[in-house]
Amino acid sequence: MTERRARGRLWGVGVGPGDPELVTVKAQRVIGASAAVAFFAAAGRPSNARAAAASHLRPGQRELALYYPVTTELAAGAGYERLLTGFYDEAADRIAAVLDEGVDVAVLCEGDPLFYGSYMYIHNRLASRYRSEVVPGVPSILAGAAVLGAPLVCRNEMLCVLSGVLPAEELQRRLAAAEAAVVMKLGRNLEKVRGCVEAAGLLERAWYVERATMPEQRILPLAEADPARAPYFSIVVIPSAEAPTR
Amino acid sequence: MTERRARGRLWGVGVGPGDPELVTVKAQRVIGASAAVAFFAAAGRPSNARAAAASHLRPGQRELALYYPVTTELAAGAGYERLLTGFYDEAADRIAAVLDEGVDVAVLCEGDPLFYGSYMYIHNRLASRYRSEVVPGVPSILAGAAVLGAPLVCRNEMLCVLSGVLPAEELQRRLAAAEAAVVMKLGRNLEKVRGCVEAAGLLERAWYVERATMPEQRILPLAEADPARAPYFSIVVIPSAEAPTR
Repeated sequence: MTERRARGRLWGVGVGPGDPELVTVKAQRVIGASAAVAFFAAAGRPSNARAAAASHLRPGQRELALYYPVTTELAAGAGYERLLTGFYDEAADRIAAVLDEGVDVAVLCEGDPLFYGSYMYIHNRLASRYRSEVVPGVPSILAGAAVLGAPLVCRNEMLCVLSGVLPAEELQRRLAAAEAAVVMKLGRNLEKVRGCVEAAGLLERAWYVERATMPEQRILPLAEADPARAPYFSIVVIPSAEAPTR
Repeated sequence: MTERRARGRLWGVGVGPGDPELVTVKAQRVIGASAAVAFFAAAGRPSNARAAAASHLRPGQRELALYYPVTTELAAGAGYERLLTGFYDEAADRIAAVLDEGVDVAVLCEGDPLFYGSYMYIHNRLASRYRSEVVPGVPSILAGAAVLGAPLVCRNEMLCVLSGVLPAEELQRRLAAAEAAVVMKLGRNLEKVRGCVEAAGLLERAWYVERATMPEQRILPLAEADPARAPYFSIVVIPSAEAPTR
């Protein structure tokens, strides 16, 4: 029991969609109080989660940068899955080693930790072995609606959140059933997603939203978005039909 | 132009799921800087949105309490719709009168303003007439996942957010198609929703979550929830099947 109490605490901390002001007061406190922070990033790129939390970090805080071995855009396959599993195992081991020293670790997560976040792979490996707590955050889908100024979903409507990686036939079928929808993980899937949105009869009220709430934010009608330059983390937002236009 | 600039600014401010620490830094700033705040509440009840924001309010701030004329649980019907439309018209008029004095108004919203929120009815009436901005917030569905410590949705899974008011047949069909789901607006719909969740084969991984992140928080397997005491704002959370159990 004594030994267990001496171990550090694992925090999954949502830092919101990008604007450092959209971090919660609790996230700010937990980040400041943790002696170590960890964050995921694409190899050779700055971490978006760290950038959103940067103004809340303290000098002297230990930082564990967890760099993906491959881009998240590569097509799925057994080799890719194995590579990622190994990567998450190693990331969890690095975090566990710090927790075992008695140091609290705040894992910084873009948006919310349990909503399509990489933190889940750490959580699934460590939450049963250490004291852990998740601090929910503002997800990108709601930041998208906010910058559009468009009611996302109301009354008894259904909201569907979909991955742009899905096959076209499935995407189209699921979009057609929803009153409001968001498609995540665009990147190279944009042209396919646009075709599905159009086939589902939703193109007129579909928006392309890139880096919502960040200085580089871009908003376009989906019909006008350029597939050659859509980042993986851009999204399509199809607000409630009851919503006024922007 | 001069006249227009002299008018107040309309803010739709998400205050998160209930824990005052889950307000964002931006919401805290906007609430503190607005000379007036407005909030919805059930007649004769304290406002949940005001309670979540209370520690961020300033003495001397003007408060517009917008009390619903009926409980939100009454069955829909033409008379009910007319009553609510009149109520929202009047609420928007009261807020507009304050904006016309040159006073900024922050409308406090539980969770997020554009995600099943009453603010949308104000937004649809006033956002085109006044400068307005929405501050997104942490929604109850992510607070629910956080307090369960359960990954909500991952990889290429679909998340469906549904209203418990929907007819049973439709609820069941939509639940059966989703990898992860949340059902909002329980209250008197709980028994029907539970039947649909069971028929869709999801009862084993379904949780009943009431007042997540608040001191009165209650979490139960859906199978054990008591329909006689479910408040309207309780939710059912069905996390990803890839998630570990709590």
